[in-house]
Amino acid sequence: MPNRSLRENMNGIEWIVDARGCSPAMLRDVEHLQRLFEKIISALQLRPIGETQWHQFPNSAGITGLCLLSESHLACHTFPEFGSLCLNLFCCVPRERWAFETELSAAFGATSVSVRAVERLYGASHEAILQSSTSAHNLSRESQGG
Amino acid sequence: MPNRSLRENMNGIEWIVDARGCSPAMLRDVEHLQRLFEKIISALQLRPIGETQWHQFPNSAGITGLCLLSESHLACHTFPEFGSLCLNLFCCVPRERWAFETELSAAFGATSVSVRAVERLYGASHEAILQSSTSAHNLSRESQGG
Repeated sequence: MPNRSLRENMNGIEWIVDARGCSPAMLRDVEHLQRLFEKIISALQLRPIGETQWHQFPNSAGITGLCLLSESHLACHTFPEFGSLCLNLFCCVPRERWAFETELSAAFGATSVSVRAVERLYGASHEAILQSSTSAHNLSRESQGG
Repeated sequence: MPNRSLRENMNGIEWIVDARGCSPAMLRDVEHLQRLFEKIISALQLRPIGETQWHQFPNSAGITGLCLLSESHLACHTFPEFGSLCLNLFCCVPRERWAFETELSAAFGATSVSVRAVERLYGASHEAILQSSTSAHNLSRESQGG
């Protein structure tokens, strides 16, 4: 979590992403989920610490992935029985907004993607939630880089 | 993630908790954070899978903890330089609301605690955010148990 002293008035951002209508087979495929994480990590220049923890549940074959980042964390949970995928990306250092909608549609066949951007209140300033509506595309602070 | 077929119209809940005014020494103490996780896990009857991943950052001594649960995940990040602690508890199975405010004040000396409860949209129904205001205490669905 670098340069925090330089941005005392800034807070972090967390993207809360819920995708539906996904292909159940893809939601049961650990390697497919690993590729999703790699793509997000590479696109946003995130820095994983240690190995991502992956677990596949025996009954539903749903998968959980937890990745510890220098920038906070990336998590996913899949629910093949509902065709759903839930993703969290918490960045204590600002990052550009990833194209969750397009990417999850392309990779998992998602038919609807809800993206909520929530400001995390850890810095010196106390600002309200940046945004809690679905599929919001333009957050000015997201383009500042890490 | 048990009994999901029984609750197709239900979704999960995620608590997003940001505490400020905490004791920096406590935010640098891994064992103190581990006790926090144990307390939450025990109180809400959560079921960890594998070992919680802990990491302490070299400069700030801030700590990240990620715990994979049968019920989804529990995560924390501390920022001793700001006296702040950020917590995520994602439960795909409903759980009672924990007393984040009182507990974090008692354990870390937090002077303000923001608690936002966000519904995760993975089930058959598509409901809006349950609640995104701070310090909300009464969510009727939280008392249904897992």
